[in-house]
Amino acid sequence: MAAIAGNVSLWSADAIRDHAGMQISLALYPGFTALDIVGPFQTFADVPGLEVGFVAEQAGPVLDHTGRLSMVATTSFAEVAAPEIIVIPGGMVRPQGVDDPVVQWIRAVHPTTMWTTSVCTGSLYLATAGVLDGVDATGHWAAMEELGRLGACPTGSRVVERGKVITAAGVSAGVDMGLTLVARIFGDDMAKIIQLAIEYDPQPPFDAGSPEKSTPEIIDLLRATMAMR
Amino acid sequence: MAAIAGNVSLWSADAIRDHAGMQISLALYPGFTALDIVGPFQTFADVPGLEVGFVAEQAGPVLDHTGRLSMVATTSFAEVAAPEIIVIPGGMVRPQGVDDPVVQWIRAVHPTTMWTTSVCTGSLYLATAGVLDGVDATGHWAAMEELGRLGACPTGSRVVERGKVITAAGVSAGVDMGLTLVARIFGDDMAKIIQLAIEYDPQPPFDAGSPEKSTPEIIDLLRATMAMR
Repeated sequence: MAAIAGNVSLWSADAIRDHAGMQISLALYPGFTALDIVGPFQTFADVPGLEVGFVAEQAGPVLDHTGRLSMVATTSFAEVAAPEIIVIPGGMVRPQGVDDPVVQWIRAVHPTTMWTTSVCTGSLYLATAGVLDGVDATGHWAAMEELGRLGACPTGSRVVERGKVITAAGVSAGVDMGLTLVARIFGDDMAKIIQLAIEYDPQPPFDAGSPEKSTPEIIDLLRATMAMR
Repeated sequence: MAAIAGNVSLWSADAIRDHAGMQISLALYPGFTALDIVGPFQTFADVPGLEVGFVAEQAGPVLDHTGRLSMVATTSFAEVAAPEIIVIPGGMVRPQGVDDPVVQWIRAVHPTTMWTTSVCTGSLYLATAGVLDGVDATGHWAAMEELGRLGACPTGSRVVERGKVITAAGVSAGVDMGLTLVARIFGDDMAKIIQLAIEYDPQPPFDAGSPEKSTPEIIDLLRATMAMR
């Protein structure tokens, strides 16, 4: 362990100390998609010294878009006034204008964040809050036109970094976004450590995870499947 | 929509009808790892007609291994006597012998499941329950020796199917396992539909997600990082 401790001190004890107590607030709202937020969560949650928590309009359980999964928010938006990092997940609902509680929270905290991030249709909340006006951004492939109508400049990239704003593509892209952010803050080695911890060596059984790699038939069937839910 | 509905009826209306009401029970226990169970959940949760639910020793919130995330179990193990599919996640705790509530539940329901599955160190629970005696299986790379000591035959594959038992490697491998299982039950097209829905076109920022792709230094640093948590 002495050699290991030596490696750590050579490596990133400074980065860990510099960011001790950094507050990462992961937003929840009724209708969120669970993997959107658990992906980034799992990339931050084991980095030593971070304060990682779930926040919603009110503390308590929040139901996901399938109605089968509840995750617990431990604090309310009102109680989290100055987080260093925020993560906004997507879901099957849409922001209800500037009065939406998630949008109001983004508007309140974004000016002082170090990083403002989203996964999937979470970027629609950032856009509604005015964070993405004229800014390159991404989101779920099926919501790119909506994203453009809200003032952002949609790109097809999986993770888009523009200044302190990072947006990710649909659902599973939050893992790629989370590792990217860990690398920015703590260095590449910490991101590789976390990637190894979560054994993120993806081997999808099919190469069909984007519209470009799919077929018109599968895209039609997806729409029909979602309509049957 | 008529053409779409036509496609669906040509395609998998039979598979959906045949499996309507199929019960998929995702286990939770204190110290579970969230992505282990949310990955597979997100691959099943939007397939029409399935009954997907979270189950634990007692209904209510269950805290993950980081202490920052709680997910809600809606039913107790005692209430779920004959699920068609079970999914056991891994975590930072270990099964407490045959009296462990998760192990007892596996022993009770495995004889009548259609599929018995695990992610990460969830395979240690299957092994403790006697499900993996002499059976090829996988799990988190750091727990393969433990898996062997419990009577399984560890393999390095990301997803291992042996009869009705499917085990997956660490944490993020649950997404690959879930899609594999959706394909077995509903056909490849349904798996591709779900893969597209969750935009699972992974682009990790590094190629460092397995011990073989890592370095001895990163592996040492991971151990040191986990010790600092």
